[in-house]
Amino acid sequence: MTEPGTERIAVIGGGNWGTTFAKVVVDGGRPVTLWARRFEQAVEINDAHRNTQYLPGIDLPLGLTANHELEPVVTGADVLFLSVPAQAARERLEEMRSMLKEDAILVSLMKGVERSTGLRMSEVIAEVSGIPMERIAVASGPNIAMEIAREEPTAIVVASESRETADRVARIARNSYLRSFVNTDVVGTEYGGVLKNLIAIAVGIVDGVGYGENTKAAVMTRGLAEITQFALTMGAQASTMMGLAGLGDLIATCESPLSRNFTAGRLLGQGYVFEDVVQQMEQTAEGLRSVRPVLDHAEAQGIDMPIARQIDAVLHGRMKPADLAPHLATDDDTPRGE
Amino acid sequence: MTEPGTERIAVIGGGNWGTTFAKVVVDGGRPVTLWARRFEQAVEINDAHRNTQYLPGIDLPLGLTANHELEPVVTGADVLFLSVPAQAARERLEEMRSMLKEDAILVSLMKGVERSTGLRMSEVIAEVSGIPMERIAVASGPNIAMEIAREEPTAIVVASESRETADRVARIARNSYLRSFVNTDVVGTEYGGVLKNLIAIAVGIVDGVGYGENTKAAVMTRGLAEITQFALTMGAQASTMMGLAGLGDLIATCESPLSRNFTAGRLLGQGYVFEDVVQQMEQTAEGLRSVRPVLDHAEAQGIDMPIARQIDAVLHGRMKPADLAPHLATDDDTPRGE
Repeated sequence: MTEPGTERIAVIGGGNWGTTFAKVVVDGGRPVTLWARRFEQAVEINDAHRNTQYLPGIDLPLGLTANHELEPVVTGADVLFLSVPAQAARERLEEMRSMLKEDAILVSLMKGVERSTGLRMSEVIAEVSGIPMERIAVASGPNIAMEIAREEPTAIVVASESRETADRVARIARNSYLRSFVNTDVVGTEYGGVLKNLIAIAVGIVDGVGYGENTKAAVMTRGLAEITQFALTMGAQASTMMGLAGLGDLIATCESPLSRNFTAGRLLGQGYVFEDVVQQMEQTAEGLRSVRPVLDHAEAQGIDMPIARQIDAVLHGRMKPADLAPHLATDDDTPRGE
Repeated sequence: MTEPGTERIAVIGGGNWGTTFAKVVVDGGRPVTLWARRFEQAVEINDAHRNTQYLPGIDLPLGLTANHELEPVVTGADVLFLSVPAQAARERLEEMRSMLKEDAILVSLMKGVERSTGLRMSEVIAEVSGIPMERIAVASGPNIAMEIAREEPTAIVVASESRETADRVARIARNSYLRSFVNTDVVGTEYGGVLKNLIAIAVGIVDGVGYGENTKAAVMTRGLAEITQFALTMGAQASTMMGLAGLGDLIATCESPLSRNFTAGRLLGQGYVFEDVVQQMEQTAEGLRSVRPVLDHAEAQGIDMPIARQIDAVLHGRMKPADLAPHLATDDDTPRGE
């Protein structure tokens, strides 16, 4: 295994988060090779040190070089960070498989589950690449790419079943404006980034109806309790949901006007119907699509998820958004424990 | 004991939270008598159904009547909600003591500790009134008074060592726009409302420096972990800190431009020094005053509180706010667990 501190590092994906993450690593002192899908994008990164489409106005560091061909980027890389759309991960990994170094570490920067299989991204990586879980990691947290690209200080969490791998990746993914924490709860770290989208929709709805910070705070707090209950049944640890990958990501998402799920909720709250929202956003926000599968699993497990249930009722026209908002915290009138 | 549903209910204190809370109870179907310190204020509430000084533009319900004399309000009341300034609680309770019904329930709506003794409000109530802890409760949560007065939906938590008392109070303090949850962790419920002010200052600082939602989310998440560690040593339960009285209150405070502690932090972040901040705000934000006692206790207990430590360093001129912000999440470079 390559000695820590001398690893060759690659980032797969030149979108806003992949590019930002590559900058994070370079700013921490390690050169990075980035795979960008389009030739012109790779050229712009190499020649102008810019990625105008995704990070307008951001100067990229000199240690970041790009290539639009996968093979030269993947071959010989010791640690590879994957930042491609969740639904494209499998295809990309199949292309990469034969190029991977035998002891490569793969790190998912992706949030989402594969729709056709329900697998988490680390599971897709393991299944396609054949790499054992102790050399797979995931990084998550409050990740508004543009803010990190502007070097606004934040923190992320790196999780791997192997604490050693998590530590090693965390040492690469840190610099003066980005701190890394580690844990071994891969399931919780991944589910935090998926389930927070549900709550972001609910917070968007109450924002769209016109309520203030109090209501949003109550929905976020009760919502976090609700998705934590769910995540526990999937094998996550509660402490992870309370950390950067759960709570941290939830807060950033719910306060960011850039969040797709929050925006979808806000449109619903303003009175648009589901079809309008999908049309207006040109694509379905990931959270909207996950409401039904999450509820199905929750019902099978006997978990009550009043917030998710009520979002579902709004989506299917059984409830008006304005009627929903006052009940988001709970729809049960009996005093009960938090 | 008076039968549940027929209790006579009093609110002591006609500020924005006391008045709002009285409206909450009346809107839930029970008449309330409110003690307001000034005669003119009581007259305005009775005749114009307004409390212009504290809740401009809010129509108060007819079931809310006020009196500027304590005795007629306290005498015969079964459940009394206290909403006076924390430092005035002892004096007010001493006045009330001889008027209290033998089986009265006292509920603190106050956030803060008594500076001269370090006691929590429920402890001050018990000490002065002689009422046993099983008839004392506290109510807390994301409580931006003006938003609740506008009937924007939210949720609070009612805590008492007696679950029966908590349930009874929760049934009184609820209506169509305010839901109540209960727990028996009085310590955690009270400390949540006190310690969140520390983190609000830190979030204010990063906001004042100019950082975005990502940074604030990271500081809030790590800050909650930090104050939870502290609260545990005082006997609180972690689940309470993760609930409405901890996380919920923290989020609402950190997103509200009305928060005194957040504002104090923002002024520090903008470069004002401690003395300027105190002067500009006409009084010290409670959180600023609590930094040193909290740190002293934490050090004695061996708890590391990097965020509180760094706020202290800023307050005492040992660190510039702009230097502090990037380190708020942690000042330790080693990867470590969340």
